[in-house]
Amino acid sequence: MRGNIIGERFIVLSFGESHGRCVGAVVDGCPAGLSLREEDIQRELDLRKPSSSLISTERREEDVVEILSGVFEGYTTGTPICMLAWNKNVRSEDYAELRYMPRPGHADYYAHVKYGGFNDYRGGGRFSGRITAGFVMAGAIAKKLLRKVLGIRIIGYSLEIGGIRAEDFTLEDAEMNRYGNDVRAPTPEAAERMRERIAEARERGDSVGGIVECVAVNVPIGLGEPVFDALDADLAKAMISIPGARGVEFGAGFAASRMTGSQHNDPLIIRDGRVVSEKNDAGGVVGGISTGMPIIVRIAFKPPSSIAMEQRTVDLRDLREAGLRVRGRHDPCIVPRAVVVVEAMMAIVLADHAIRAGLMPPVLGRED
Amino acid sequence: MRGNIIGERFIVLSFGESHGRCVGAVVDGCPAGLSLREEDIQRELDLRKPSSSLISTERREEDVVEILSGVFEGYTTGTPICMLAWNKNVRSEDYAELRYMPRPGHADYYAHVKYGGFNDYRGGGRFSGRITAGFVMAGAIAKKLLRKVLGIRIIGYSLEIGGIRAEDFTLEDAEMNRYGNDVRAPTPEAAERMRERIAEARERGDSVGGIVECVAVNVPIGLGEPVFDALDADLAKAMISIPGARGVEFGAGFAASRMTGSQHNDPLIIRDGRVVSEKNDAGGVVGGISTGMPIIVRIAFKPPSSIAMEQRTVDLRDLREAGLRVRGRHDPCIVPRAVVVVEAMMAIVLADHAIRAGLMPPVLGRED
Amino acid sequence: MRGNIIGERFIVLSFGESHGRCVGAVVDGCPAGLSLREEDIQRELDLRKPSSSLISTERREEDVVEILSGVFEGYTTGTPICMLAWNKNVRSEDYAELRYMPRPGHADYYAHVKYGGFNDYRGGGRFSGRITAGFVMAGAIAKKLLRKVLGIRIIGYSLEIGGIRAEDFTLEDAEMNRYGNDVRAPTPEAAERMRERIAEARERGDSVGGIVECVAVNVPIGLGEPVFDALDADLAKAMISIPGARGVEFGAGFAASRMTGSQHNDPLIIRDGRVVSEKNDAGGVVGGISTGMPIIVRIAFKPPSSIAMEQRTVDLRDLREAGLRVRGRHDPCIVPRAVVVVEAMMAIVLADHAIRAGLMPPVLGRED
Amino acid sequence: MRGNIIGERFIVLSFGESHGRCVGAVVDGCPAGLSLREEDIQRELDLRKPSSSLISTERREEDVVEILSGVFEGYTTGTPICMLAWNKNVRSEDYAELRYMPRPGHADYYAHVKYGGFNDYRGGGRFSGRITAGFVMAGAIAKKLLRKVLGIRIIGYSLEIGGIRAEDFTLEDAEMNRYGNDVRAPTPEAAERMRERIAEARERGDSVGGIVECVAVNVPIGLGEPVFDALDADLAKAMISIPGARGVEFGAGFAASRMTGSQHNDPLIIRDGRVVSEKNDAGGVVGGISTGMPIIVRIAFKPPSSIAMEQRTVDLRDLREAGLRVRGRHDPCIVPRAVVVVEAMMAIVLADHAIRAGLMPPVLGRED
Repeated sequence: MRGNIIGERFIVLSFGESHGRCVGAVVDGCPAGLSLREEDIQRELDLRKPSSSLISTERREEDVVEILSGVFEGYTTGTPICMLAWNKNVRSEDYAELRYMPRPGHADYYAHVKYGGFNDYRGGGRFSGRITAGFVMAGAIAKKLLRKVLGIRIIGYSLEIGGIRAEDFTLEDAEMNRYGNDVRAPTPEAAERMRERIAEARERGDSVGGIVECVAVNVPIGLGEPVFDALDADLAKAMISIPGARGVEFGAGFAASRMTGSQHNDPLIIRDGRVVSEKNDAGGVVGGISTGMPIIVRIAFKPPSSIAMEQRTVDLRDLREAGLRVRGRHDPCIVPRAVVVVEAMMAIVLADHAIRAGLMPPVLGRED
Repeated sequence: MRGNIIGERFIVLSFGESHGRCVGAVVDGCPAGLSLREEDIQRELDLRKPSSSLISTERREEDVVEILSGVFEGYTTGTPICMLAWNKNVRSEDYAELRYMPRPGHADYYAHVKYGGFNDYRGGGRFSGRITAGFVMAGAIAKKLLRKVLGIRIIGYSLEIGGIRAEDFTLEDAEMNRYGNDVRAPTPEAAERMRERIAEARERGDSVGGIVECVAVNVPIGLGEPVFDALDADLAKAMISIPGARGVEFGAGFAASRMTGSQHNDPLIIRDGRVVSEKNDAGGVVGGISTGMPIIVRIAFKPPSSIAMEQRTVDLRDLREAGLRVRGRHDPCIVPRAVVVVEAMMAIVLADHAIRAGLMPPVLGRED
Repeated sequence: MRGNIIGERFIVLSFGESHGRCVGAVVDGCPAGLSLREEDIQRELDLRKPSSSLISTERREEDVVEILSGVFEGYTTGTPICMLAWNKNVRSEDYAELRYMPRPGHADYYAHVKYGGFNDYRGGGRFSGRITAGFVMAGAIAKKLLRKVLGIRIIGYSLEIGGIRAEDFTLEDAEMNRYGNDVRAPTPEAAERMRERIAEARERGDSVGGIVECVAVNVPIGLGEPVFDALDADLAKAMISIPGARGVEFGAGFAASRMTGSQHNDPLIIRDGRVVSEKNDAGGVVGGISTGMPIIVRIAFKPPSSIAMEQRTVDLRDLREAGLRVRGRHDPCIVPRAVVVVEAMMAIVLADHAIRAGLMPPVLGRED
Repeated sequence: MRGNIIGERFIVLSFGESHGRCVGAVVDGCPAGLSLREEDIQRELDLRKPSSSLISTERREEDVVEILSGVFEGYTTGTPICMLAWNKNVRSEDYAELRYMPRPGHADYYAHVKYGGFNDYRGGGRFSGRITAGFVMAGAIAKKLLRKVLGIRIIGYSLEIGGIRAEDFTLEDAEMNRYGNDVRAPTPEAAERMRERIAEARERGDSVGGIVECVAVNVPIGLGEPVFDALDADLAKAMISIPGARGVEFGAGFAASRMTGSQHNDPLIIRDGRVVSEKNDAGGVVGGISTGMPIIVRIAFKPPSSIAMEQRTVDLRDLREAGLRVRGRHDPCIVPRAVVVVEAMMAIVLADHAIRAGLMPPVLGRED
């Protein structure tokens, strides 16, 4: 593969650029018989929209999804589903300067070298967070498939933003609150403090990072194909491929490295006649296989690289050092918008592995 | 794929079980013309041996590698290289009880469910850390290839064990010291304290986890195929597929999520006429592409699950809760032995991406 | 993979249905820096148009290609190239009857079973020859790439139609004549007789098959990755995936099975200081590797299944046998239109293997 | 992939060389719970043995298979199955001359160029028919799996050798007779004449080719993943990757290209309440999907290249033309031994597609 395809059975190909004609995705491998309409996808896509109250930008990304293939009379046909959103409101002129003035922290310079200067530099091109709109389109299908066939629900939220960590909440709290506030926090209190933290950074012309936590419940035992296509390994790959992700951990994660075996091991017990683990420090994956417990993953996002403060870079025209203020419309924190992207990637990997494990029929029953 | 293959161009297939006839690997895609002898692989394999001073076990894993194919007159031929080590000194009787008494924290129960009870449960079978011997064999070839063609060096070490973190050391210190002490610490001081920490856990019949840090230097700009086969995404997958890994991070990693953009962005500067970044909080990968700076990855390992202390589990014969003391020979800390495995996975991913990026010729020049 | 992707490094994903919104393809893996405009693709697509003089149909497939991504300022960027042609002039009502009356020789019934009745049956949906428009789009890029970087030319033509076989012609004749007549014959004489044969079948409400021969010249030694990704093996797969193909052979092909070794073996000789073979019964591929001689492949196409004559089928509504006359607009012979499709598949496979063999740089030099 | 792996879900990796330590294969993706012993594989491997009455060679290939992994207590575990046969009775000195004297019709010269002279030239190395022993090992597993789970039987035989074509026989005749004669003919009469034809060629120091026909019965409707992973496309690839194969066709095959649509289309009828086709010119695959009718494939094999008669080649040491008589032990016709190889490849592809189509459970029920 050349790099823009993920998955073995539920396959997603990403295409499009930030300032080209469109961004989109093709899904190959979705079972036939899933009821699917553009609204199903649009709903998820809308969750990725920037919040006007949070960010300095006026770019309104009114992404409207169109399904071009693979759906007939309201149901998936088992053939490739091509989806896209046309790019609108593109102000490429903001980026003219950046052709030769790579932004620190961005891929600009490295893409320039790798692609011999042929890369579409406008808005970062393929390296823009904008391409995650395609991830969300594919994820919307995966989510619906998982919910309908296996009853799996995926709940992501901003666990931490700019050092402000949400605390004292249950998964139910998170599920109820996260899409009710524009920072996707699991509690209103955290939302308030995170919003302030972002505003503060924005005013200084700076940006902040954070951590998304994502939980999948009702995942059956047995997803994951060790040793290399372990469920957590494939989730790690999917998460780290989201622009801005710098780390990923499962269950107790890095904290597990400071625990003893007697602390960390999840005892096996019988509950309601079934074998379950008493706690879930493993985060729902042991030996690369899902355990039936909730899958818990956390992804660290760096602060956005595009900031208004002056930064030091290099002018490639004459190879001299130079100062740069990134203009244009930028998010001071991508974590809130990344939540639905993380959920999408989780859904894509779980759908892929559910098919691989033989838990997803190639044709679904027709809905009434 | 069913799961035991990693890589697109430098492909590794893992086979073998802990208590079966052998453990091994096949490499498909190694360029022709690499000088390769069994000693090249044995040397790496020896670094994975348990240290008798550290662990309670007397199992002596005298892994002796044999190359079965793909090498002719001392050079790789460009065809599949099958390698294995025969299993010796196997005491399967230690595991008879475990057939129906899954060990907490291990994959025993989940593998039993997934594979319908057909899995080779002895010593964890495919879920044993023992299969990483095959990873190290493949990694030895990748390492040699990277060093010879691109001058890439890979330096892994135990950054932290049982909460003891090595501090105040340079990469040169680490390179010099790590294989001179049996905990693979980057400094003698850390080695001493880590060794004590492990001994203390072992005496209590417990185990400890830790963090491996691994650095690759001399990696050229341009490795990585975004958006999904980003270099960091593929490294994350490879690392998380190592048994016991619970988290992975790059450069500043999770700490980046608490930084501001102005702190985290690596300024671009000119040094010796080349564009480089002044610092390396990105850990050598930006936008999924290598930057030419050292690649820095950290992997969190949980404490080993097999501990002598009594734990609660379930007897599958009559589905009742039961106590279990894991007998047999087990490492109280796998971090020291994981170092060379992490290096191997780093090498495998870098070799794969070097070929994908067109930086590795299909045939090497014959050595004098 | 689920089936709609071909290639390892030059990857083509096919999407779209006969009577859906569009047909198209995405190419992932095209090197950066190839000069590419929609005209380059349109030219090839026009060669796939039905000839009004040959066929009974009035369906005018005015396919107009649009490039949606992966090209910037007239050059490929190294990122996925999504291309499509919107479907126009769709008369789906011709097909309403066919929902429950599968056409003999078509995939109608088998697709109905496989996809649980969710398949888009209109015009055969994904099983229509129409999807080969997407193959031609991808092939146009591959052809340009091969020509520009390696000087490879691909020449396909109708070797035989309805039993009329073109004879006494050179490759130069074929190259000059094939696109100058609407049956794509290598000589005007053959063209005349083939055209008559098609007309005769059409008048009877019947159809005829034929054989496409395709030759690639200037292919360097060494393409092909045995044992399974042998060049001829991958060509065979690509060719047989073209709708209507029933057989494929290389060089002397089936006739080789009746030759002796002393007749068939191509002697090696020196010409102009280079090792070449005196004749080319091997068809340019030996042991799965290109030999530097012209690659010669022949593909047998069955007669189109949609014919006006009454045929026997089954009415799926009440599972009784029934008579069927296929209405709508159909080609009495697909061979002439298949020529450019065969060329496209040849180009796709050669481009893929040229990259795999390290003969294609990831970035091309900028053209003047 | 680099080329030595075939299959998506039932994956086969081939390794080993003609005169190296062993030949073998690894199967990844075999469901757990298949009863499997070395005898199951040995039986198939024995069918590949050269017949002493047919050939001039005294090389006795006493291939004895060993299973190294993936089987526990007599059942597959769902993990990689590594199998090999050690090479014995290797007379490499017969090949010393061939290092610089490439045999016409063989891959010797092209492999020399592609792999920069690092290839193991002895006996053709990876290009020897000997590597098909590994194909047969993997095929034996696939065959058993198909028979047990789906009741699929695979029947291959020598349809034609040296121009002698078996006629007037039924599939039952073929199934009964093929392994009862050493040329694998479907009738004793054909066997007699084919044997004579081979003897005649051998005496002249020459060789002959032929055609293998292979039929799979009881294949359910729906195998195949169009458009590119069409069942016939994947079969074509698998067949052409067998050393010596020069063409492949399905059902009426090349003859279909001379039929009209009204002749070729298979009418759909009702038989025993099921929709079937009245005849089977399609050879059991339409639109890339299995039809439930027998799958019929024919593969043309060229005459072996290694012949005792003098041939013209090039001495690579001084780049001058030279005469060559190939010494050593060679088959004057590989068709009889290719039969079980063709069956193996058919089985591998069908097993792969049965899993892909969701028709093969990941765990089989335990046998009594």
